Amino acid sequence: MIRFECDYLEGAHPEVLDALIKTNLEQTCGYSEDSYCEEAREKIKTAIGRNDADIHFLVGGTQANLTVITAALRAHQGVIAADTGHIAVHESGAIEATGHKVITLPNDHGKINAAQIREFVDAHYADATHEHMPQPAMVYISHPTEFGTLYTKKELKDISEVCREKNLILFVDGARLGYGLEATGTDVTLHDLANLTDVFYIGGTKVGALFGEAVVVNHPLLKRDFRYIMKQRGGMLAKGRLLGIQFGALFTDNLYSRIGKHAIELSDLIRNTLRDLNIPELVPSPTNQLFPVLSNEKIAKLSEKYSFSHWANVDENHSAIRICTSWATTKENVTKLIDDLKAL
Amino acid sequence: MIRFECDYLEGAHPEVLDALIKTNLEQTCGYSEDSYCEEAREKIKTAIGRNDADIHFLVGGTQANLTVITAALRAHQGVIAADTGHIAVHESGAIEATGHKVITLPNDHGKINAAQIREFVDAHYADATHEHMPQPAMVYISHPTEFGTLYTKKELKDISEVCREKNLILFVDGARLGYGLEATGTDVTLHDLANLTDVFYIGGTKVGALFGEAVVVNHPLLKRDFRYIMKQRGGMLAKGRLLGIQFGALFTDNLYSRIGKHAIELSDLIRNTLRDLNIPELVPSPTNQLFPVLSNEKIAKLSEKYSFSHWANVDENHSAIRICTSWATTKENVTKLIDDLKAL
Amino acid sequence: MIRFECDYLEGAHPEVLDALIKTNLEQTCGYSEDSYCEEAREKIKTAIGRNDADIHFLVGGTQANLTVITAALRAHQGVIAADTGHIAVHESGAIEATGHKVITLPNDHGKINAAQIREFVDAHYADATHEHMPQPAMVYISHPTEFGTLYTKKELKDISEVCREKNLILFVDGARLGYGLEATGTDVTLHDLANLTDVFYIGGTKVGALFGEAVVVNHPLLKRDFRYIMKQRGGMLAKGRLLGIQFGALFTDNLYSRIGKHAIELSDLIRNTLRDLNIPELVPSPTNQLFPVLSNEKIAKLSEKYSFSHWANVDENHSAIRICTSWATTKENVTKLIDDLKAL
Amino acid sequence: MIRFECDYLEGAHPEVLDALIKTNLEQTCGYSEDSYCEEAREKIKTAIGRNDADIHFLVGGTQANLTVITAALRAHQGVIAADTGHIAVHESGAIEATGHKVITLPNDHGKINAAQIREFVDAHYADATHEHMPQPAMVYISHPTEFGTLYTKKELKDISEVCREKNLILFVDGARLGYGLEATGTDVTLHDLANLTDVFYIGGTKVGALFGEAVVVNHPLLKRDFRYIMKQRGGMLAKGRLLGIQFGALFTDNLYSRIGKHAIELSDLIRNTLRDLNIPELVPSPTNQLFPVLSNEKIAKLSEKYSFSHWANVDENHSAIRICTSWATTKENVTKLIDDLKAL
Repeated sequence: MIRFECDYLEGAHPEVLDALIKTNLEQTCGYSEDSYCEEAREKIKTAIGRNDADIHFLVGGTQANLTVITAALRAHQGVIAADTGHIAVHESGAIEATGHKVITLPNDHGKINAAQIREFVDAHYADATHEHMPQPAMVYISHPTEFGTLYTKKELKDISEVCREKNLILFVDGARLGYGLEATGTDVTLHDLANLTDVFYIGGTKVGALFGEAVVVNHPLLKRDFRYIMKQRGGMLAKGRLLGIQFGALFTDNLYSRIGKHAIELSDLIRNTLRDLNIPELVPSPTNQLFPVLSNEKIAKLSEKYSFSHWANVDENHSAIRICTSWATTKENVTKLIDDLKAL
Repeated sequence: MIRFECDYLEGAHPEVLDALIKTNLEQTCGYSEDSYCEEAREKIKTAIGRNDADIHFLVGGTQANLTVITAALRAHQGVIAADTGHIAVHESGAIEATGHKVITLPNDHGKINAAQIREFVDAHYADATHEHMPQPAMVYISHPTEFGTLYTKKELKDISEVCREKNLILFVDGARLGYGLEATGTDVTLHDLANLTDVFYIGGTKVGALFGEAVVVNHPLLKRDFRYIMKQRGGMLAKGRLLGIQFGALFTDNLYSRIGKHAIELSDLIRNTLRDLNIPELVPSPTNQLFPVLSNEKIAKLSEKYSFSHWANVDENHSAIRICTSWATTKENVTKLIDDLKAL
Repeated sequence: MIRFECDYLEGAHPEVLDALIKTNLEQTCGYSEDSYCEEAREKIKTAIGRNDADIHFLVGGTQANLTVITAALRAHQGVIAADTGHIAVHESGAIEATGHKVITLPNDHGKINAAQIREFVDAHYADATHEHMPQPAMVYISHPTEFGTLYTKKELKDISEVCREKNLILFVDGARLGYGLEATGTDVTLHDLANLTDVFYIGGTKVGALFGEAVVVNHPLLKRDFRYIMKQRGGMLAKGRLLGIQFGALFTDNLYSRIGKHAIELSDLIRNTLRDLNIPELVPSPTNQLFPVLSNEKIAKLSEKYSFSHWANVDENHSAIRICTSWATTKENVTKLIDDLKAL
Repeated sequence: MIRFECDYLEGAHPEVLDALIKTNLEQTCGYSEDSYCEEAREKIKTAIGRNDADIHFLVGGTQANLTVITAALRAHQGVIAADTGHIAVHESGAIEATGHKVITLPNDHGKINAAQIREFVDAHYADATHEHMPQPAMVYISHPTEFGTLYTKKELKDISEVCREKNLILFVDGARLGYGLEATGTDVTLHDLANLTDVFYIGGTKVGALFGEAVVVNHPLLKRDFRYIMKQRGGMLAKGRLLGIQFGALFTDNLYSRIGKHAIELSDLIRNTLRDLNIPELVPSPTNQLFPVLSNEKIAKLSEKYSFSHWANVDENHSAIRICTSWATTKENVTKLIDDLKAL
């Protein structure tokens, strides 16, 4: 079975694993206060072009989301998200478990926009009974989104502006950020994210690390005491250096970019095949996730050799599946898939 | 100014107030363990036809909702509600603040139905990743709904059945129950609520009491330790007898029914006028809330003499307003309103 | 049975009840935005000597405590209290249920002092692993304490200073404040509380109201959005005017002071008797609570005619009981008790 | 600098790391549903002698504690722990952040006993106002404790019995379990833990793994839906197989025991030296943590070559330090330390 169902099927990129192996028996202090974490922080600051950011390492995405949101909100405040946002649909109520409502706006291919946010917030304060509703105080977006789509720099700027105007903390979930940054045609860079958001994270779990996400914090409220909250929510790794070593490797010799490029190159090959074969896509994702719509018969046929996620029933006879590439996907396997798609 | 904007504009029904006055200087123990509370519990058990129910008194609706839901759910569980349900839209995130997601289903005039619930729960367990989503474990409905509409006995029975089949706790918010029980044409009785739900509350605040709701608990999980949770959430009144005295009065000489009938009689007068005048209603409510749609010009005119809630913008020139009657509404004021509606 | 076990045995002071009766059928808007609440706020501002305070009305003490603490703390912060503090021992974990640790310091007759607070906070920050412990961010004291004792103005000032120095929000629980303000020998006034604390509440439930506490907020963080949090925690009464009317009455013609004086006068009579009879007291309370230590035999004898709280086992044969006076205690009943104490 | 300050200074035991390296490029499904996790579960079941247990893998200790406790308690319930228990003092209020009070009992060298628990629970229910206090529903103990001490089988049995009698869930934190199981003179085995507790965890982070704890669940309430709660609290690792692979290695060829034995052997060498030199110990720990009391002068001298934790000030001139051994400690370094201790 050749697996394409997600981008966390294997362990770590060899360069990341090597860094762990090489340092395995060194002694360091714990809780991410070691020199490996410090070095990784410096490298990330260079990569994002901001020296004043705080960088914290967390083990996984849900944990990063719930820690950041807990740190950002007072008890009566909620976080705005697309109704398809990861925190809204796929974290077992993690945000609600911290006491905060996820306020959902209708998505457009996984995205929300500045006008929607403005309208919602204006309507909140225009309602005489607004104190009877959670106060919108944060915006959560994913880049790439859960559908693999990307914000343009213009869209991000507009969202950033409305957030500053309306006193909303802007948080970007970058679980798959590496694949977004290298997508064909995107104009959003790490520098843009660092300048336009209050907090975002650079995903490692799906982009070459064994595990780990690097949270970049610019907002002063979030900077204050963030480590208390990491500890409280179970997110402060005793051997914190494991995260520093991995992110150090990811930001050495452009590894993070190389990983992104590799996965995009392979996904573009599949994407082009789909388009050549006139296979429709549920969502026009430019990143490492693809959502082709096929007849259930053809899906059954492909399933004999490949695994992928069932994504949505399109009609009685057709479904959308999800195919992912990653740092670990091989050209050989992609070529096989392409040949089999053509042969269908 | 004659006020019609809600059903909590005045203090208490005179018979309720008299009961408080008469007992004012008596000494009783606290925390609803006094004999007035005991008597009120017995009267309510008789009224609902169940001797095995536990009856607890709470001060207000949001408090009743959050206490009941806290008592009912484990950490990973959510409560299903109409997207217009009070807990979903108008309690400042009270339920999320207890850690639980409110899972919303699209409403039909404020109502949801058994088929929707079944479909949602089946889809949850059919999804291979259901552990990544809050587990549906409770259903919350309002009777009357936030739009004044009512469930039929058949609808309630169907919901009750799907809840029992799917292991969902069924909770009915009866903030305005008195007006629902006496609505023209309803076939739902207190006995039905007691038999078809796991927990419901009999609203006092809007139905003749100064304040207070009587929670009727049938489900064994909720019975166990409910008072600990009342205390923890700030809902255990030191002078608990105040609630017992009021509910004792409400369930003496059919006062709760008389109040309901009075308000319905007056709302029916207005309703008939609206229909005679071909004034459309946003929602065809049979209870004490009415939602006529009028031109903004006419609304402005009426506003000179009457207050009501602005409910929704219907188009550029028309809006829906809310008019409420209650135990305290006078025929005289209703007649004036009717005359002025006719004169418009 | 003549009851002395607590100070919430009866309904409301007649002047308070009269105010409710007189206004019963008036129509007002809800949620404490009516003119009665406004007037009560103005009267309280005058009484405390601060025009810039925000005044909010809540139904009960646990609710006031949990609402204020929720509003004041970020997720990782805890509140310092005496180990005998009400929030530490007698609210069913209400504060923990809002996510915050109650950090306890050893009490001296129910009190803590500035030096203890300073030492604790200094030790916290001196510990290299302080991020692994809840951050002390608030101090909760009761005045009178749960043992009826009082802070002196000097003690309060010292606590206030250390709180300002260490960036701790100072909160005073005044559930029985009326009896503290009028105690023989106290030098603490409402003006002092208003000037030395960030937030405190003026208890109504135990001091003449049917129910209700008036929260006085000076700290800007707590002022911001307090009503959202009241609503979220179930503490925003629909008929908010009930609280305004009652506090309006309590702050008319010095009723709050008169109530305090009446209860203290009667408790002083009992206190003097205890001292004349050489009956020891568990704690030397100067307020409306008395804690005489008697042989279990004598307690049994007294119990035939009077009810009081069993407070503590002192030795095998002796226990401390609690006797309370209040606005409703009659001189006649106190005289009987004194006679029977003498006769023992 | 030779480091002895804790037992998480290095990466993973070479056999664990090798297992990760060997499997790095294999493709598996996520969220601990892969065959490596399955195999590890089977090995652990064999090691504990119970086939009916559920085994779940979590990343760290605080996360394990908060997830287990969240799964076990209803909203009004608290967990009993020693006042020195990790959840009581060193998790930034993680348990309170889930809404539950940590109810502390005085410790004896880090331990609590059955009689204390029984007395506390009996006193709770004997108090007429017990509903005003958190309900004790769980007991948390650490084995080894935070002071390196161990329960005897008899002590564990007694605690287990009182827990079953009083309906308390018994939870053992085994962050350093490997070092407890191999301590000289202990009579507690994995089988005992599996039979006497409702839930416990086998620590990996400090016992040879890069990170990870294996939670063993016997109680039916905790078995139900545990994975929902893992996900909700950020504890479900996307690449769950990383934990399965590591625990698989730890339970292959007795590695977990070998690691324990190695650390104990080296700590016994130091321990014997301390005793030979008449250096007092703060606590008589038989496990991999040692707490010698030395003059501050001698500590300063040792600090030039070695790092250890400052544990407590004993008097003006003496302090207790903590020295830890682990799987990674070398005999060479221990010999140096012993020589230098002798030379002091």
